[in-house]
Amino acid sequence: MKKDWIAIDWGTSNFRAFLMNENLCTDSISAPCGLMQVRDRQFAAALQPLIQPWLDRCTSLPVLMAGMVGSQQGWREVPYVTLPVGYQQLAQHVVAVPTPWGSPCQIVPGAIGNNASGLPDVMRGEEVQLVGLAALYPQREHHVILPGTHSKHAVLHHGKIRCFSTFMTGEIYAVMLSHSLLGRDLPQATEENTAFALGVKNAQHAPCLSNALFSARTLRLNDTLAPDQIASYLSGLLIGAELRELPQNEAWIVGSPELTERYTRAGHLLDITLYAADGNDCFTRGMSLIYQSLDGEIV
Amino acid sequence: MKKDWIAIDWGTSNFRAFLMNENLCTDSISAPCGLMQVRDRQFAAALQPLIQPWLDRCTSLPVLMAGMVGSQQGWREVPYVTLPVGYQQLAQHVVAVPTPWGSPCQIVPGAIGNNASGLPDVMRGEEVQLVGLAALYPQREHHVILPGTHSKHAVLHHGKIRCFSTFMTGEIYAVMLSHSLLGRDLPQATEENTAFALGVKNAQHAPCLSNALFSARTLRLNDTLAPDQIASYLSGLLIGAELRELPQNEAWIVGSPELTERYTRAGHLLDITLYAADGNDCFTRGMSLIYQSLDGEIV
Repeated sequence: MKKDWIAIDWGTSNFRAFLMNENLCTDSISAPCGLMQVRDRQFAAALQPLIQPWLDRCTSLPVLMAGMVGSQQGWREVPYVTLPVGYQQLAQHVVAVPTPWGSPCQIVPGAIGNNASGLPDVMRGEEVQLVGLAALYPQREHHVILPGTHSKHAVLHHGKIRCFSTFMTGEIYAVMLSHSLLGRDLPQATEENTAFALGVKNAQHAPCLSNALFSARTLRLNDTLAPDQIASYLSGLLIGAELRELPQNEAWIVGSPELTERYTRAGHLLDITLYAADGNDCFTRGMSLIYQSLDGEIV
Repeated sequence: MKKDWIAIDWGTSNFRAFLMNENLCTDSISAPCGLMQVRDRQFAAALQPLIQPWLDRCTSLPVLMAGMVGSQQGWREVPYVTLPVGYQQLAQHVVAVPTPWGSPCQIVPGAIGNNASGLPDVMRGEEVQLVGLAALYPQREHHVILPGTHSKHAVLHHGKIRCFSTFMTGEIYAVMLSHSLLGRDLPQATEENTAFALGVKNAQHAPCLSNALFSARTLRLNDTLAPDQIASYLSGLLIGAELRELPQNEAWIVGSPELTERYTRAGHLLDITLYAADGNDCFTRGMSLIYQSLDGEIV
Protein backbone atom coordinates (compact mmCIF):
# COMPACT_ATOMS: atom_id res chain seq x y z
CA MET A 1 0.00 0.00 0.00
CA LYS A 2 3.00 2.34 -0.13
CA LYS A 3 1.83 4.05 -3.28
CA ASP A 4 -1.73 4.44 -2.02
CA TRP A 5 -3.20 7.74 -0.85
CA ILE A 6 -6.62 9.39 -0.57
CA ALA A 7 -7.86 12.43 -2.53
CA ILE A 8 -10.89 14.21 -1.06
CA ASP A 9 -13.21 16.90 -2.42
CA TRP A 10 -15.03 18.20 0.63
CA GLY A 11 -17.55 20.90 -0.13
CA THR A 12 -20.37 22.65 1.69
CA SER A 13 -22.99 20.05 0.70
CA ASN A 14 -21.08 17.05 -0.60
CA PHE A 15 -18.19 14.77 0.22
CA ARG A 16 -16.31 12.71 -2.36
CA ALA A 17 -13.24 10.63 -1.64
CA PHE A 18 -11.01 8.72 -4.05
CA LEU A 19 -8.61 5.93 -3.12
CA MET A 20 -5.60 6.53 -5.35
CA ASN A 21 -2.76 4.27 -6.39
CA GLU A 22 -0.21 6.72 -7.75
CA ASN A 23 -2.22 8.45 -10.54
CA LEU A 24 -5.03 5.92 -10.69
CA CYS A 25 -8.30 5.94 -8.83
CA THR A 26 -8.97 2.43 -7.51
CA ASP A 27 -12.08 3.12 -5.42
CA SER A 28 -14.35 6.03 -4.55
CA ILE A 29 -16.96 7.13 -2.04
CA SER A 30 -19.62 9.79 -2.39
CA ALA A 31 -21.75 10.90 0.57
CA PRO A 32 -24.12 13.77 1.37
CA CYS A 33 -21.82 14.67 4.27
CA GLY A 34 -20.93 18.24 3.36
CA LEU A 35 -19.24 20.60 5.80
CA MET A 36 -22.65 21.97 6.80
CA GLN A 37 -23.43 18.55 8.30
CA VAL A 38 -20.36 18.55 10.55
CA ARG A 39 -21.29 19.37 14.16
CA ASP A 40 -19.15 21.56 16.40
CA ARG A 41 -16.33 21.65 13.85
CA GLN A 42 -15.47 17.99 14.58
CA PHE A 43 -14.03 17.47 11.10
CA ALA A 44 -11.61 14.66 11.90
CA ALA A 45 -14.34 12.74 13.71
CA ALA A 46 -16.66 13.24 10.72
CA LEU A 47 -14.02 12.17 8.21
CA GLN A 48 -12.75 9.00 9.85
CA PRO A 49 -15.87 6.79 9.51
CA LEU A 50 -16.27 7.87 5.87
CA ILE A 51 -12.84 6.52 4.88
CA GLN A 52 -12.58 3.77 7.53
CA PRO A 53 -12.87 0.89 4.99
CA TRP A 54 -9.63 2.14 3.40
CA LEU A 55 -7.94 2.90 6.73
CA ASP A 56 -8.68 -0.66 7.82
CA ARG A 57 -6.21 -1.81 5.18
CA CYS A 58 -3.63 0.86 6.05
CA THR A 59 -4.07 3.22 9.01
CA SER A 60 -1.62 5.83 7.86
CA LEU A 61 -2.80 6.42 4.27
CA PRO A 62 -1.86 10.00 3.32
CA VAL A 63 -4.84 12.29 2.71
CA LEU A 64 -4.97 15.32 0.42
CA MET A 65 -8.14 17.44 0.56
CA ALA A 66 -9.51 20.32 -1.51
CA GLY A 67 -12.68 22.42 -1.56
CA MET A 68 -14.48 24.41 1.12
CA VAL A 69 -12.75 22.27 3.75
CA GLY A 70 -10.01 24.92 3.47
CA SER A 71 -12.35 27.88 4.00
CA GLN A 72 -13.15 29.92 7.11
CA GLN A 73 -16.09 27.58 7.72
CA GLY A 74 -13.97 24.47 7.06
CA TRP A 75 -11.46 22.40 9.00
CA ARG A 76 -8.62 24.89 8.65
CA GLU A 77 -8.57 28.17 6.73
CA VAL A 78 -5.94 27.90 4.00
CA PRO A 79 -5.10 31.30 2.46
CA TYR A 80 -6.00 31.71 -1.23
CA VAL A 81 -3.19 31.62 -3.78
CA THR A 82 -3.14 34.59 -6.18
CA LEU A 83 -3.50 34.11 -9.96
CA PRO A 84 -1.89 32.93 -12.16
CA VAL A 85 -2.12 29.52 -10.50
CA GLY A 86 -0.87 26.12 -11.69
CA TYR A 87 -0.53 22.85 -9.80
CA GLN A 88 2.94 23.87 -8.59
CA GLN A 89 1.59 26.95 -6.77
CA LEU A 90 -1.17 24.84 -5.22
CA ALA A 91 1.34 22.23 -4.02
CA GLN A 92 3.59 24.92 -2.53
CA HIS A 93 0.81 26.30 -0.35
CA VAL A 94 -0.90 23.22 1.11
CA VAL A 95 -1.48 23.33 4.87
CA ALA A 96 -1.26 20.29 7.15
CA VAL A 97 -3.91 19.33 9.69
CA PRO A 98 -3.48 16.58 12.30
CA THR A 99 -5.56 13.38 12.27
CA PRO A 100 -6.09 11.35 15.46
CA TRP A 101 -5.51 8.09 13.58
CA GLY A 102 -2.12 9.16 12.31
CA SER A 103 -2.57 9.86 8.59
CA PRO A 104 -0.57 12.76 7.23
CA CYS A 105 -3.28 15.11 5.97
CA GLN A 106 -2.99 18.29 3.92
CA ILE A 107 -5.44 20.82 2.47
CA VAL A 108 -4.98 22.44 -0.95
CA PRO A 109 -5.52 26.24 -1.07
CA GLY A 110 -8.15 27.95 -3.23
CA ALA A 111 -7.39 30.63 -5.82
CA ILE A 112 -8.07 34.37 -5.81
CA GLY A 113 -7.84 36.96 -8.59
CA ASN A 114 -9.64 39.81 -10.29
CA ASN A 115 -12.41 38.71 -12.62
CA ALA A 116 -13.41 40.12 -16.01
CA SER A 117 -15.07 43.14 -14.37
CA GLY A 118 -12.07 43.92 -12.17
CA LEU A 119 -13.74 42.64 -9.00
CA PRO A 120 -12.07 40.11 -6.72
CA ASP A 121 -13.19 36.53 -7.24
CA VAL A 122 -12.47 33.29 -5.41
CA MET A 123 -12.71 29.53 -5.91
CA ARG A 124 -12.09 26.49 -3.72
CA GLY A 125 -12.02 23.05 -5.31
CA GLU A 126 -12.46 24.11 -8.94
CA GLU A 127 -8.76 25.07 -9.19
CA VAL A 128 -7.89 21.38 -8.82
CA GLN A 129 -10.28 20.37 -11.61
CA LEU A 130 -8.86 23.11 -13.83
CA VAL A 131 -5.22 22.04 -13.52
CA GLY A 132 -6.40 18.44 -13.96
CA LEU A 133 -8.27 19.33 -17.16
CA ALA A 134 -5.17 21.07 -18.55
CA ALA A 135 -3.12 17.90 -17.93
CA LEU A 136 -5.74 15.56 -19.40
CA TYR A 137 -6.33 17.66 -22.51
CA PRO A 138 -3.24 19.82 -23.11
CA GLN A 139 -3.84 23.00 -25.13
CA ARG A 140 -2.29 26.46 -25.24
CA GLU A 141 -5.51 27.99 -23.95
CA HIS A 142 -8.63 26.58 -22.31
CA HIS A 143 -11.93 28.40 -21.75
CA VAL A 144 -13.75 26.39 -19.11
CA ILE A 145 -17.15 26.42 -17.41
CA LEU A 146 -17.50 24.65 -14.05
CA PRO A 147 -21.24 24.69 -13.40
CA GLY A 148 -22.71 24.52 -9.91
CA THR A 149 -24.05 26.55 -7.01
CA HIS A 150 -21.43 29.17 -7.86
CA SER A 151 -20.60 28.47 -11.48
CA LYS A 152 -17.10 29.47 -12.60
CA HIS A 153 -15.91 30.64 -16.01
CA ALA A 154 -12.14 30.30 -16.20
CA VAL A 155 -9.38 30.87 -18.72
CA LEU A 156 -6.23 28.73 -18.57
CA HIS A 157 -3.02 29.67 -20.33
CA HIS A 158 -0.37 26.95 -20.70
CA GLY A 159 -2.11 25.00 -17.94
CA LYS A 160 -2.25 27.86 -15.45
CA ILE A 161 -5.43 29.59 -14.33
CA ARG A 162 -5.14 33.13 -15.65
CA CYS A 163 -8.57 34.57 -14.71
CA PHE A 164 -12.07 33.48 -13.73
CA SER A 165 -15.52 34.86 -12.90
CA THR A 166 -18.24 33.45 -10.67
CA PHE A 167 -21.92 33.31 -11.61
CA MET A 168 -24.31 32.52 -8.74
CA THR A 169 -26.48 30.45 -11.09
CA GLY A 170 -27.23 27.48 -8.86
CA GLU A 171 -27.79 29.49 -5.70
CA ILE A 172 -30.06 32.10 -7.35
CA TYR A 173 -32.06 29.22 -8.87
CA ALA A 174 -32.53 27.52 -5.50
CA VAL A 175 -33.21 30.69 -3.53
CA MET A 176 -35.67 32.25 -5.98
CA LEU A 177 -37.54 28.98 -6.37
CA SER A 178 -37.81 28.41 -2.62
CA HIS A 179 -38.24 31.94 -1.30
CA SER A 180 -39.50 34.36 -3.97
CA LEU A 181 -42.82 35.01 -5.68
CA LEU A 182 -41.54 32.99 -8.66
CA GLY A 183 -41.70 29.72 -6.75
CA ARG A 184 -44.95 30.29 -4.91
CA ASP A 185 -47.46 27.41 -5.04
CA LEU A 186 -45.47 25.28 -7.46
CA PRO A 187 -45.94 21.53 -7.78
CA GLN A 188 -42.93 19.18 -7.75
CA ALA A 189 -40.65 20.33 -10.57
CA THR A 190 -40.14 18.07 -13.55
CA GLU A 191 -37.28 18.40 -16.04
CA GLU A 192 -39.01 19.93 -19.05
CA ASN A 193 -37.04 20.73 -22.18
CA THR A 194 -39.45 23.13 -23.92
CA ALA A 195 -39.58 25.47 -20.93
CA PHE A 196 -35.82 25.15 -20.42
CA ALA A 197 -35.18 26.09 -24.07
CA LEU A 198 -37.55 29.08 -23.81
CA GLY A 199 -35.65 30.27 -20.73
CA VAL A 200 -32.28 29.98 -22.50
CA LYS A 201 -33.65 31.94 -25.47
CA ASN A 202 -35.38 34.64 -23.42
CA ALA A 203 -32.23 35.30 -21.40
CA GLN A 204 -30.56 36.48 -24.62
CA HIS A 205 -33.02 39.35 -25.06
CA ALA A 206 -33.50 40.62 -21.53
CA PRO A 207 -31.26 43.54 -20.65
CA CYS A 208 -30.70 42.49 -17.06
CA LEU A 209 -31.23 39.30 -15.06
CA SER A 210 -33.45 41.03 -12.47
CA ASN A 211 -35.73 41.87 -15.40
CA ALA A 212 -35.53 38.48 -17.14
CA LEU A 213 -36.41 36.62 -13.92
CA PHE A 214 -39.80 38.33 -13.72
CA SER A 215 -40.84 36.59 -16.95
CA ALA A 216 -41.01 33.37 -14.90
CA ARG A 217 -44.00 35.06 -13.29
CA THR A 218 -45.63 36.71 -16.29
CA LEU A 219 -45.38 33.67 -18.59
CA ARG A 220 -47.18 31.71 -15.89
CA LEU A 221 -49.84 34.42 -15.55
CA ASN A 222 -50.52 34.39 -19.30
CA ASP A 223 -50.52 30.55 -19.44
CA THR A 224 -47.47 30.23 -21.68
CA LEU A 225 -45.92 28.13 -18.91
CA ALA A 226 -47.63 25.63 -16.62
CA PRO A 227 -46.69 25.66 -12.93
CA ASP A 228 -44.65 22.46 -13.29
CA GLN A 229 -42.53 24.09 -16.03
CA ILE A 230 -41.38 27.09 -13.97
CA ALA A 231 -38.33 25.40 -12.46
CA SER A 232 -37.02 24.30 -15.88
CA TYR A 233 -37.70 27.76 -17.31
CA LEU A 234 -35.82 29.43 -14.45
CA SER A 235 -32.90 27.04 -14.95
CA GLY A 236 -32.86 27.93 -18.65
CA LEU A 237 -32.95 31.67 -17.91
CA LEU A 238 -30.03 31.51 -15.49
CA ILE A 239 -27.86 29.22 -17.61
CA GLY A 240 -28.74 31.27 -20.70
CA ALA A 241 -27.69 34.48 -18.94
CA GLU A 242 -24.41 32.82 -17.99
CA LEU A 243 -23.62 31.48 -21.46
CA ARG A 244 -24.38 34.89 -22.97
CA GLU A 245 -21.21 36.14 -21.28
CA LEU A 246 -18.89 33.62 -22.95
CA PRO A 247 -16.41 35.55 -25.09
CA GLN A 248 -16.23 32.79 -27.73
CA ASN A 249 -18.52 30.12 -29.14
CA GLU A 250 -16.77 27.10 -27.68
CA ALA A 251 -15.59 26.09 -24.23
CA TRP A 252 -14.88 23.12 -22.00
CA ILE A 253 -17.44 22.13 -19.43
CA VAL A 254 -16.33 20.22 -16.35
CA GLY A 255 -18.78 18.74 -13.88
CA SER A 256 -21.30 16.01 -13.22
CA PRO A 257 -22.88 14.36 -16.27
CA GLU A 258 -26.28 15.82 -15.31
CA LEU A 259 -25.07 19.43 -15.20
CA THR A 260 -22.75 19.21 -18.21
CA GLU A 261 -25.61 17.71 -20.25
CA ARG A 262 -27.90 20.57 -19.27
CA TYR A 263 -25.33 23.24 -20.19
CA THR A 264 -24.50 21.44 -23.43
CA ARG A 265 -28.18 21.47 -24.34
CA ALA A 266 -28.36 25.22 -23.64
CA GLY A 267 -25.14 25.80 -25.61
CA HIS A 268 -26.58 23.94 -28.58
CA LEU A 269 -29.49 26.42 -28.71
CA LEU A 270 -27.02 29.32 -28.82
CA ASP A 271 -24.55 27.81 -31.31
CA ILE A 272 -22.02 27.37 -28.53
CA THR A 273 -20.06 24.10 -28.57
CA LEU A 274 -19.26 22.74 -25.12
CA TYR A 275 -16.71 19.94 -24.74
CA ALA A 276 -17.60 17.90 -21.68
CA ALA A 277 -14.93 16.56 -19.33
CA ASP A 278 -15.79 14.46 -16.28
CA GLY A 279 -15.47 16.42 -13.05
CA ASN A 280 -14.13 13.47 -11.05
CA ASP A 281 -11.50 12.61 -13.68
CA CYS A 282 -10.28 16.21 -13.73
CA PHE A 283 -10.25 16.33 -9.93
CA THR A 284 -8.23 13.12 -9.42
CA ARG A 285 -5.78 14.12 -12.14
CA GLY A 286 -5.33 17.57 -10.59
CA MET A 287 -4.88 16.09 -7.10
CA SER A 288 -2.30 13.61 -8.44
CA LEU A 289 -0.26 16.45 -9.94
CA ILE A 290 -0.38 18.34 -6.65
CA TYR A 291 0.36 15.24 -4.55
CA GLN A 292 3.41 14.36 -6.61
CA SER A 293 4.71 17.94 -6.34
CA LEU A 294 4.49 18.20 -2.56
CA ASP A 295 7.73 19.18 -0.90
CA GLY A 296 9.22 16.38 1.15
CA GLU A 297 7.62 13.08 2.02
CA ILE A 298 3.95 13.33 2.95
CA VAL A 299 3.93 9.70 4.12
CA MET B 1 -70.27 64.35 2.37
CA LYS B 2 -71.69 63.90 -1.15
CA LYS B 3 -68.40 64.70 -2.82
CA ASP B 4 -66.43 62.45 -0.48
CA TRP B 5 -65.02 59.08 -1.50
CA ILE B 6 -62.17 56.76 -0.52
CA ALA B 7 -59.14 55.83 -2.65
CA ILE B 8 -57.24 52.71 -1.55
CA ASP B 9 -53.91 51.25 -2.57
CA TRP B 10 -53.99 47.69 -1.27
CA GLY B 11 -50.84 45.73 -1.95
CA THR B 12 -49.31 42.46 -0.83
CA SER B 13 -47.60 43.97 2.22
CA ASN B 14 -49.16 47.40 2.72
CA PHE B 15 -52.48 49.16 2.90
CA ARG B 16 -52.94 52.86 2.29
CA ALA B 17 -56.30 54.66 2.18
CA PHE B 18 -57.06 58.27 1.32
CA LEU B 19 -60.24 60.12 2.20
CA MET B 20 -60.94 62.26 -0.85
CA ASN B 21 -63.08 65.33 -1.34
CA GLU B 22 -63.36 65.53 -5.09
CA ASN B 23 -59.69 65.79 -6.14
CA LEU B 24 -58.31 66.61 -2.73
CA CYS B 25 -57.02 64.27 -0.10
CA THR B 26 -58.41 65.34 3.29
CA ASP B 27 -57.19 62.45 5.44
CA SER B 28 -55.15 59.28 5.06
CA ILE B 29 -54.39 55.97 6.76
CA SER B 30 -51.40 53.69 6.35
CA ALA B 31 -51.30 50.24 7.92
CA PRO B 32 -49.15 47.10 7.61
CA CYS B 33 -52.32 45.22 6.64
CA GLY B 34 -51.30 43.89 3.23
CA LEU B 35 -53.28 41.20 1.45
CA MET B 36 -50.96 38.56 2.90
CA GLN B 37 -52.34 39.41 6.35
CA VAL B 38 -55.95 38.77 5.33
CA ARG B 39 -57.18 35.42 6.63
CA ASP B 40 -59.45 33.12 4.62
CA ARG B 41 -59.96 35.74 1.90
CA GLN B 42 -62.15 37.82 4.27
CA PHE B 43 -61.27 41.07 2.48
CA ALA B 44 -64.43 43.04 3.32
CA ALA B 45 -64.09 42.11 7.00
CA ALA B 46 -60.43 43.16 6.93
CA LEU B 47 -61.18 46.45 5.19
CA GLN B 48 -64.09 47.71 7.27
CA PRO B 49 -62.26 48.36 10.58
CA LEU B 50 -59.44 50.12 8.73
CA ILE B 51 -61.76 52.76 7.27
CA GLN B 52 -64.43 52.71 10.04
CA PRO B 53 -63.57 56.25 11.31
CA TRP B 54 -64.58 57.58 7.90
CA LEU B 55 -67.60 55.29 7.56
CA ASP B 56 -68.82 56.55 10.95
CA ARG B 57 -69.39 59.90 9.29
CA CYS B 58 -71.00 58.40 6.18
CA THR B 59 -71.72 54.65 5.87
CA SER B 60 -72.00 54.60 2.10
CA LEU B 61 -68.81 56.40 1.08
CA PRO B 62 -67.82 55.11 -2.37
CA VAL B 63 -64.57 53.16 -2.43
CA LEU B 64 -62.16 52.83 -5.36
CA MET B 65 -59.27 50.39 -4.90
CA ALA B 66 -56.10 49.60 -6.87
CA GLY B 67 -53.11 47.32 -6.49
CA MET B 68 -52.76 43.60 -5.84
CA VAL B 69 -56.28 43.62 -4.38
CA GLY B 70 -57.32 43.02 -8.02
CA SER B 71 -55.01 40.02 -8.51
CA GLN B 72 -55.68 36.28 -8.32
CA GLN B 73 -54.60 36.40 -4.68
CA GLY B 74 -56.71 39.50 -4.00
CA TRP B 75 -60.36 40.24 -3.32
CA ARG B 76 -61.44 39.80 -6.92
CA GLU B 77 -59.34 39.10 -9.99
CA VAL B 78 -59.71 42.03 -12.37
CA PRO B 79 -58.34 41.24 -15.86
CA TYR B 80 -55.33 43.31 -16.95
CA VAL B 81 -55.88 46.05 -19.54
CA THR B 82 -53.55 45.88 -22.53
CA LEU B 83 -51.17 48.74 -23.39
CA PRO B 84 -51.39 51.55 -24.32
CA VAL B 85 -53.26 52.46 -21.14
CA GLY B 86 -54.52 55.86 -19.92
CA TYR B 87 -56.91 56.68 -17.11
CA GLN B 88 -59.89 56.28 -19.46
CA GLN B 89 -59.03 52.61 -20.18
CA LEU B 90 -58.59 51.97 -16.45
CA ALA B 91 -61.97 53.57 -15.67
CA GLN B 92 -63.70 51.54 -18.37
CA HIS B 93 -62.56 48.23 -16.88
CA VAL B 94 -63.12 48.63 -13.14
CA VAL B 95 -64.92 45.70 -11.49
CA ALA B 96 -67.42 46.09 -8.64
CA VAL B 97 -67.27 44.06 -5.42
CA PRO B 98 -70.03 44.10 -2.77
CA THR B 99 -69.47 45.47 0.73
CA PRO B 100 -71.61 44.32 3.67
CA TRP B 101 -71.92 47.90 4.95
CA GLY B 102 -73.32 49.20 1.67
CA SER B 103 -70.51 51.25 0.09
CA PRO B 104 -70.28 50.98 -3.67
CA CYS B 105 -66.81 49.55 -4.16
CA GLN B 106 -64.80 49.08 -7.36
CA ILE B 107 -61.35 47.75 -8.23
CA VAL B 108 -59.10 49.29 -10.90
CA PRO B 109 -57.45 46.80 -13.30
CA GLY B 110 -53.70 46.41 -13.74
CA ALA B 111 -51.87 46.80 -17.04
CA ILE B 112 -50.21 44.21 -19.31
CA GLY B 113 -47.92 44.62 -22.28
CA ASN B 114 -44.68 43.45 -23.84
CA ASN B 115 -41.57 44.92 -22.26
CA ALA B 116 -38.36 46.13 -23.90
CA SER B 117 -37.19 42.52 -24.43
CA GLY B 118 -40.48 41.42 -26.00
CA LEU B 119 -41.55 39.46 -22.92
CA PRO B 120 -44.95 39.97 -21.30
CA ASP B 121 -44.93 42.25 -18.28
CA VAL B 122 -47.57 43.23 -15.74
CA MET B 123 -48.25 45.88 -13.10
CA ARG B 124 -50.98 46.46 -10.51
CA GLY B 125 -51.12 49.78 -8.70
CA GLU B 126 -48.29 51.54 -10.53
CA GLU B 127 -50.56 52.26 -13.53
CA VAL B 128 -52.56 54.62 -11.29
CA GLN B 129 -49.44 56.47 -10.16
CA LEU B 130 -48.29 56.76 -13.77
CA VAL B 131 -51.49 58.36 -15.09
CA GLY B 132 -51.46 60.58 -11.99
CA LEU B 133 -47.90 61.69 -12.67
CA ALA B 134 -48.79 62.55 -16.27
CA ALA B 135 -51.65 64.75 -15.04
CA LEU B 136 -49.58 66.45 -12.34
CA TYR B 137 -46.61 67.14 -14.61
CA PRO B 138 -47.87 67.18 -18.22
CA GLN B 139 -45.22 66.41 -20.86
CA ARG B 140 -45.23 64.79 -24.29
CA GLU B 141 -43.16 61.89 -22.96
CA HIS B 142 -42.28 60.65 -19.49
CA HIS B 143 -39.64 58.07 -18.60
CA VAL B 144 -40.51 56.89 -15.10
CA ILE B 145 -39.03 54.60 -12.45
CA LEU B 146 -41.35 53.24 -9.76
CA PRO B 147 -38.98 51.58 -7.28
CA GLY B 148 -40.05 48.75 -5.01
CA THR B 149 -40.20 44.99 -4.59
CA HIS B 150 -40.79 44.75 -8.32
CA SER B 151 -39.43 48.02 -9.66
CA LYS B 152 -41.02 49.30 -12.88
CA HIS B 153 -39.46 51.34 -15.67
CA ALA B 154 -42.24 52.88 -17.78
CA VAL B 155 -42.56 55.15 -20.77
CA LEU B 156 -45.64 57.39 -21.08
CA HIS B 157 -46.64 59.05 -24.32
CA HIS B 158 -49.19 61.87 -24.10
CA GLY B 159 -50.19 60.61 -20.67
CA LYS B 160 -50.71 57.00 -21.71
CA ILE B 161 -48.50 54.10 -20.61
CA ARG B 162 -46.82 52.89 -23.78
CA CYS B 163 -44.42 50.24 -22.40
CA PHE B 164 -42.78 49.14 -19.17
CA SER B 165 -40.32 46.60 -17.76
CA THR B 166 -40.10 45.04 -14.31
CA PHE B 167 -36.88 44.63 -12.34
CA MET B 168 -37.11 42.36 -9.27
CA THR B 169 -34.74 44.64 -7.38
CA GLY B 170 -36.46 44.72 -3.99
CA GLU B 171 -37.32 41.03 -3.92
CA ILE B 172 -33.85 39.84 -5.00
CA TYR B 173 -32.37 42.11 -2.32
CA ALA B 174 -34.58 40.65 0.39
CA VAL B 175 -34.27 37.03 -0.71
CA MET B 176 -30.50 37.02 -1.23
CA LEU B 177 -29.92 38.77 2.07
CA SER B 178 -32.17 36.38 4.01
CA HIS B 179 -31.54 33.08 2.26
CA SER B 180 -28.26 33.05 0.33
CA LEU B 181 -24.58 32.82 1.24
CA LEU B 182 -24.36 36.61 0.80
CA GLY B 183 -26.42 37.28 3.91
CA ARG B 184 -24.96 34.58 6.16
CA ASP B 185 -23.95 35.71 9.66
CA LEU B 186 -24.63 39.41 9.08
CA PRO B 187 -25.26 41.86 11.91
CA GLN B 188 -28.23 44.25 11.76
CA ALA B 189 -27.83 46.24 8.54
CA THR B 190 -27.11 49.95 8.73
CA GLU B 191 -27.59 52.40 5.86
CA GLU B 192 -24.05 53.02 4.72
CA ASN B 193 -23.34 55.36 1.82
CA THR B 194 -19.77 54.31 0.94
CA ALA B 195 -20.76 50.68 0.45
CA PHE B 196 -23.93 51.69 -1.42
CA ALA B 197 -21.90 53.89 -3.80
CA LEU B 198 -19.38 51.07 -4.39
CA GLY B 199 -22.26 48.73 -5.25
CA VAL B 200 -23.75 51.22 -7.73
CA LYS B 201 -20.36 51.66 -9.38
CA ASN B 202 -19.47 47.96 -9.49
CA ALA B 203 -22.79 47.10 -11.13
CA GLN B 204 -21.71 49.15 -14.15
CA HIS B 205 -18.72 46.88 -14.85
CA ALA B 206 -20.14 43.43 -14.17
CA PRO B 207 -21.39 41.65 -17.27
CA CYS B 208 -24.29 39.95 -15.54
CA LEU B 209 -26.10 40.37 -12.23
CA SER B 210 -25.50 36.74 -11.17
CA ASN B 211 -21.80 37.57 -11.46
CA ALA B 212 -21.96 41.03 -9.82
CA LEU B 213 -23.83 39.64 -6.80
CA PHE B 214 -20.92 37.37 -5.89
CA SER B 215 -18.76 40.43 -5.22
CA ALA B 216 -20.88 40.97 -2.08
CA ARG B 217 -19.10 37.82 -0.88
CA THR B 218 -15.59 38.39 -2.16
CA LEU B 219 -15.35 42.03 -1.01
CA ARG B 220 -16.25 40.79 2.45
CA LEU B 221 -13.67 38.00 2.27
CA ASN B 222 -10.92 40.47 1.31
CA ASP B 223 -12.03 42.98 4.00
CA THR B 224 -13.03 45.74 1.56
CA LEU B 225 -16.49 45.58 3.13
CA ALA B 226 -17.38 45.01 6.77
CA PRO B 227 -20.30 42.67 7.53
CA ASP B 228 -22.58 45.58 8.44
CA GLN B 229 -21.97 47.16 5.00
CA ILE B 230 -23.11 44.17 2.93
CA ALA B 231 -26.80 45.12 2.84
CA SER B 232 -26.04 48.63 1.58
CA TYR B 233 -23.60 47.26 -0.99
CA LEU B 234 -26.19 44.76 -2.24
CA SER B 235 -28.78 47.54 -2.50
CA GLY B 236 -26.30 49.61 -4.52
CA LEU B 237 -25.50 46.70 -6.84
CA LEU B 238 -29.16 45.98 -7.60
CA ILE B 239 -30.18 49.62 -8.06
CA GLY B 240 -27.04 50.25 -10.12
CA ALA B 241 -27.86 47.29 -12.39
CA GLU B 242 -31.36 48.68 -12.83
CA LEU B 243 -30.25 52.25 -13.63
CA ARG B 244 -27.74 50.92 -16.12
CA GLU B 245 -30.69 49.92 -18.31
CA LEU B 246 -32.17 53.44 -18.54
CA PRO B 247 -32.09 54.51 -22.19
CA GLN B 248 -31.51 58.18 -21.32
CA ASN B 249 -29.81 60.14 -18.55
CA GLU B 250 -32.93 61.58 -16.95
CA ALA B 251 -36.16 60.14 -15.66
CA TRP B 252 -38.96 60.67 -13.16
CA ILE B 253 -38.94 58.67 -9.99
CA VAL B 254 -42.20 58.03 -8.16
CA GLY B 255 -42.34 56.46 -4.74
CA SER B 256 -41.76 56.93 -1.05
CA PRO B 257 -39.27 59.64 -0.03
CA GLU B 258 -36.89 56.97 1.33
CA LEU B 259 -36.72 54.99 -1.92
CA THR B 260 -36.69 57.99 -4.27
CA GLU B 261 -33.83 59.49 -2.24
CA ARG B 262 -31.84 56.27 -2.52
CA TYR B 263 -32.35 56.03 -6.28
CA THR B 264 -31.56 59.72 -6.72
CA ARG B 265 -28.30 59.20 -4.85
CA ALA B 266 -27.43 56.28 -7.14
CA GLY B 267 -28.43 58.31 -10.21
CA HIS B 268 -26.16 61.13 -9.12
CA LEU B 269 -23.17 58.76 -9.17
CA LEU B 270 -24.02 57.76 -12.75
CA ASP B 271 -24.80 61.27 -14.08
CA ILE B 272 -28.48 60.37 -14.29
CA THR B 273 -30.89 63.07 -13.15
CA LEU B 274 -33.97 61.73 -11.42
CA TYR B 275 -36.95 64.03 -10.81
CA ALA B 276 -38.78 62.87 -7.72
CA ALA B 277 -42.56 62.90 -7.50
CA ASP B 278 -44.41 61.80 -4.37
CA GLY B 279 -46.00 58.37 -4.78
CA ASN B 280 -49.09 59.24 -2.74
CA ASP B 281 -49.71 62.47 -4.68
CA CYS B 282 -49.45 60.60 -7.99
CA PHE B 283 -51.72 57.85 -6.69
CA THR B 284 -54.51 60.15 -5.44
CA ARG B 285 -54.35 62.21 -8.62
CA GLY B 286 -54.56 59.08 -10.78
CA MET B 287 -57.44 57.68 -8.72
CA SER B 288 -59.30 61.01 -8.99
CA LEU B 289 -59.04 60.92 -12.78
CA ILE B 290 -60.33 57.37 -12.86
CA TYR B 291 -63.08 58.05 -10.32
CA GLN B 292 -64.37 61.02 -12.29
CA SER B 293 -64.39 58.98 -15.50
CA LEU B 294 -66.41 56.06 -14.17
CA ASP B 295 -69.51 55.27 -16.20
CA GLY B 296 -72.68 56.10 -14.33
CA GLU B 297 -72.97 57.11 -10.73
CA ILE B 298 -70.83 55.09 -8.34
CA VAL B 299 -72.63 56.67 -5.35
